[in-house]
Amino acid sequence: MNPNFDTIGKGFVDTYYTLFDTNRSQLQPLYRDHSMLTFEGQQFQGAIAITQKLVALPFQAVKHVLTTVDCQPIPNNGVLVFVVGQLKSDDDHPHGFSQTFVLFPEDEAATKYYVMNDIFRLALHHG
Amino acid sequence: MNPNFDTIGKGFVDTYYTLFDTNRSQLQPLYRDHSMLTFEGQQFQGAIAITQKLVALPFQAVKHVLTTVDCQPIPNNGVLVFVVGQLKSDDDHPHGFSQTFVLFPEDEAATKYYVMNDIFRLALHHG
Repeated sequence: MNPNFDTIGKGFVDTYYTLFDTNRSQLQPLYRDHSMLTFEGQQFQGAIAITQKLVALPFQAVKHVLTTVDCQPIPNNGVLVFVVGQLKSDDDHPHGFSQTFVLFPEDEAATKYYVMNDIFRLALHHG
Repeated sequence: MNPNFDTIGKGFVDTYYTLFDTNRSQLQPLYRDHSMLTFEGQQFQGAIAITQKLVALPFQAVKHVLTTVDCQPIPNNGVLVFVVGQLKSDDDHPHGFSQTFVLFPEDEAATKYYVMNDIFRLALHHG
């Protein structure tokens, strides 16, 4: 198990949403050919397809405001990351969202991590 | 990668929330000694500690109503499960929640799965 899972997960989240909110095309190096994204139920595989989907999302200005970030270690030096927050896009009202990632190290030295799994859902507003 | 990840994940979710909503103490066999739960930021490890936490939650009647269940395969025959739904407890208003699980097979035959990771968060109501 990875003893630095919390630092790794939170560092990843900082990088990820900063890139997302400034230039989504820059997210491509965080994914690999076997990475998977499920975005509001739609499935995408591979860094190119995933980045194309994210870049094509129908908003210009976007900002993620995070409420909570929870991390846990998983086998083979992986890190499970779970984010709850709000998404503010263009002039829309903020929308709640939650997102989960599984990260794995790129190499034995585990100095860099990539996204193996990514699942995103907007929260519905009732209750 | 596990080709049956979707069937396994959705079957697990049915079992999990049915047990949770009828008799939470019955959840213990779904966890192992190295399983982890992060519940609203509080961390628990091991089937006994996790089940004690779940049983001690301050409500009697509880019902999970699921909005979405997304599953993806992860290495070593694991399954990532991501749930968004509503939690109705006692006479409270329903609360939105999201929860992510990592499941692994108990044995080579992969006929049964246990929960390696479990992270739960209530959604906040704004926006």
